[in-house]
Amino acid sequence: MKLTENALGRFVPVEINGEAQIPFQGVNQYRPNGCKAKPPIRSCIDYPEEGNKVVKSLKDALKKAGLRDGMTISTHHHLRNGDDLTNILFDTIKSMGVKDIRWFPSASFPIHQHLLQYLEDGTIHHIEGSMNGPLGKFTTEGKMKGIGVLRSHGGRYQAVQDGEVHIDIAVIAAPTADPFGNANGVNGKSACGLIGFALADSEYADRVIVVTDNLVPFPCVPWQIQGNNVDYVVQVDSLGDATKIVSGTTEITKSPDRLLIAEYVAQFIEEAGIMKDGFSFQAGSGGTNLAFVLYLKERMKAKGVKARFVRGGSTKYLVELLEEGLTDYILDGQTFDLEGVRSMRENPNHVNTSPFTSYNFHGKGNFASIIDAAVLGATEVDINFNANVVTHSDGYLLHGIGGWQNCLYSKCTILAIPSFRDRIPVIMDEVTTICGPGELIDVIITERGIAINPKRKDLLKALKESSLPIKPIKQIRDEVYEICGGKPAKPVVNKDKVVAVVKWVDGTVLDSVFQVVK
Amino acid sequence: MKLTENALGRFVPVEINGEAQIPFQGVNQYRPNGCKAKPPIRSCIDYPEEGNKVVKSLKDALKKAGLRDGMTISTHHHLRNGDDLTNILFDTIKSMGVKDIRWFPSASFPIHQHLLQYLEDGTIHHIEGSMNGPLGKFTTEGKMKGIGVLRSHGGRYQAVQDGEVHIDIAVIAAPTADPFGNANGVNGKSACGLIGFALADSEYADRVIVVTDNLVPFPCVPWQIQGNNVDYVVQVDSLGDATKIVSGTTEITKSPDRLLIAEYVAQFIEEAGIMKDGFSFQAGSGGTNLAFVLYLKERMKAKGVKARFVRGGSTKYLVELLEEGLTDYILDGQTFDLEGVRSMRENPNHVNTSPFTSYNFHGKGNFASIIDAAVLGATEVDINFNANVVTHSDGYLLHGIGGWQNCLYSKCTILAIPSFRDRIPVIMDEVTTICGPGELIDVIITERGIAINPKRKDLLKALKESSLPIKPIKQIRDEVYEICGGKPAKPVVNKDKVVAVVKWVDGTVLDSVFQVVK
Repeated sequence: MKLTENALGRFVPVEINGEAQIPFQGVNQYRPNGCKAKPPIRSCIDYPEEGNKVVKSLKDALKKAGLRDGMTISTHHHLRNGDDLTNILFDTIKSMGVKDIRWFPSASFPIHQHLLQYLEDGTIHHIEGSMNGPLGKFTTEGKMKGIGVLRSHGGRYQAVQDGEVHIDIAVIAAPTADPFGNANGVNGKSACGLIGFALADSEYADRVIVVTDNLVPFPCVPWQIQGNNVDYVVQVDSLGDATKIVSGTTEITKSPDRLLIAEYVAQFIEEAGIMKDGFSFQAGSGGTNLAFVLYLKERMKAKGVKARFVRGGSTKYLVELLEEGLTDYILDGQTFDLEGVRSMRENPNHVNTSPFTSYNFHGKGNFASIIDAAVLGATEVDINFNANVVTHSDGYLLHGIGGWQNCLYSKCTILAIPSFRDRIPVIMDEVTTICGPGELIDVIITERGIAINPKRKDLLKALKESSLPIKPIKQIRDEVYEICGGKPAKPVVNKDKVVAVVKWVDGTVLDSVFQVVK
Repeated sequence: MKLTENALGRFVPVEINGEAQIPFQGVNQYRPNGCKAKPPIRSCIDYPEEGNKVVKSLKDALKKAGLRDGMTISTHHHLRNGDDLTNILFDTIKSMGVKDIRWFPSASFPIHQHLLQYLEDGTIHHIEGSMNGPLGKFTTEGKMKGIGVLRSHGGRYQAVQDGEVHIDIAVIAAPTADPFGNANGVNGKSACGLIGFALADSEYADRVIVVTDNLVPFPCVPWQIQGNNVDYVVQVDSLGDATKIVSGTTEITKSPDRLLIAEYVAQFIEEAGIMKDGFSFQAGSGGTNLAFVLYLKERMKAKGVKARFVRGGSTKYLVELLEEGLTDYILDGQTFDLEGVRSMRENPNHVNTSPFTSYNFHGKGNFASIIDAAVLGATEVDINFNANVVTHSDGYLLHGIGGWQNCLYSKCTILAIPSFRDRIPVIMDEVTTICGPGELIDVIITERGIAINPKRKDLLKALKESSLPIKPIKQIRDEVYEICGGKPAKPVVNKDKVVAVVKWVDGTVLDSVFQVVK
């Protein structure tokens, strides 16, 4: 496998799964040329005039869509760990004797370990999407036939739009749909909020299949996915386990260290002058982020400050901000709990967004760079502020990128992380995998101290008199190494075998994940 | 000019404005091949990170967009007869010394007679869109440099999507917008309802300029046009005369003949068995159509029937249906009065649609063919049920096609028209211009009698016992000719000079409009 050194000094393949690649050229250095993907022109002649696209089964739809060996099939993670449909889809593909599928999910969850058998028997050739848990282990150990490709949510849209990934058949799980294919995620027993991760697929895939367990008469309103892009509709009894689709158990952290981090984040945002009328922030799920929202809310109330918009991953905590008048809008990329689903259904100011609006780097701007502050996590951060979200220090793939890379473009990107986990340093000399270039990461907030990127002289100045424990990042590293007994052990990897790559938001190759040998 | 005979026996140019054409091949006979238009890939690198795309003037935006001779510039008719912006746009283009523009409006209004000077001086080369009033006269008399092209609303989307018309610069009048370019028509002093006619332009044009007289902080919600497709935003004091944007004076007809027609339509729809729970219909503006809605409403109430959806052009009469629970939804293509605007702003079941969802024939189906009954007008209908909406019997262009052609695909298409106007027959042997092939037109309802297309044996059977004055169409023609003193005089035209063509919904050429000599 031929590797080349990219602008961050990382070695990445010049070719992936038979296709030539562009190595990462630096932040904002690669300018695309060429035109967007161009789907075939369809005609109403070939669709039922009365608008009824329902076919009798998923198998039937796949047949009509022309399923064959080597195709790219896309799915989405709206149903999260309750997603039975993707497993049933591949059971069906297997039963049809079709092989070598490129599976292109927007993310995978533990429930998809069911698909290991299909990676082993050749039904699935490789995955382009997150490879978590058992799928991550399988991939990291070098057992997948092709090379995995990890993209951010925005990068996934970009790859489809730019024609890097041609989807043959998109299979969209829809909590509610009509026979024409209009679909949404806000209604029905499998309601998950929005289904915007399927937008690119509905626009660009050759064939689009909507599968629903709540078929309603035309029109299905709102139509988050437009029936005018849909070929077939399949009605099933159940898309999956509703209790796992939206967990409903998004809990605030109880860890004193994490609570301290959350408090620091809120204080930092206020003292940096970011928290002012009309400001905006993005907060994801995870116990620390949820706690941060509560601390910031108290500060907003105390100062009489109102946000113009907040971005989620929505949770009941963001919904409370909206309902208490502390923000004009929630611009929501995915709903993390049932309160988020309810609010999106009921409140026109809880707006569903898509990777196109929020994150696509190959558009005429996107929402992510408009945000005043984004609070994110990481598995590792190095002394140059480079950060990792896909592997742990043992070299194993464990997470997807989600919208993380895209959010780095916010005006103030804060990583809120513990300085070590399970006695393994999180702040270190060099991350296992670079997912985000340090120049885009402004602040690292740990329980042990806060490091501001030296590039951000404005923030250093604004926080000069702060009571917050602001320190050079190397000092935090030193402290952590001392506590943990030195730097983390490096995994033994096969440097000749790349098992997956991390793409940057512009489609270039940012880093490689190597086979872990031991 | 070389002409060829198409499937309806009409002579149409083989080439229009230098581009080869496909003559109409019959309803549902032409199947497109090839791929959709492919706009250039953009990058966030080239757009302001903080999302502020406001430039200082329209002229500045046009310069940045690279305006030059021969370009295609698109505008939209959302502001109707209050549209000052389009006039200002061409004043600006003229002041920049740019020539030979192809103007691609979604429709034109009397206010645009201001542009005659630019057709005369070569600023505008030709119009592709409706040519009404003075523009129609200018065109029909053979004075326009190029050949006009008339398309339906759906045909306009199709032409852009298919790459038949490449828009260089789209100028979108937005009653409300934010600095990122998100825009809507429901708020602001120039509120017009929706701005969906600009959807295709925003998706496919090289450069997109949003002009607003109500700039709000990001995010502008709802975003009917997405800022991610917008290059520049221009703030102006006024887009036009708000009193003319939405007339607010949509009046029911007082003519006894027209009221009779409206009553016949309502009775027909009930007796044909169309008016049943869950049914749908489309009604446009115009006194007869408005009256029909009232008559049908009485019948629905009397029978306890509720519609699933109605389509407009919305008016207060459709809004009343929604608010009184007589329909679940209004699927609205454009708002005709202030009540329509209010309802769209307030009621999530008053849904804005676009030519993509409603009408595009080169999609995976569209809403128009799902409708149970569409009630439309016409300027002329012949004994083969072919109908005309763009010219009068004097040969002059007087109207655009609007969504009329697209609506012909409804399950029951009814033309509700007087049998003659100003002592000129409307029912006749041969229409001046064919805009709709007779095989798609099911029923002609006049004050003098109702003609059912012999193809619709089901309707003939259902109405067998009806008290309605159902007659063969030739009988109505004979009566009308007798009243009017014979067939209408034919205009003297120059058969060597096509001044405009009528496209069918699939992009083929349906008919020609010839230069009127006298």
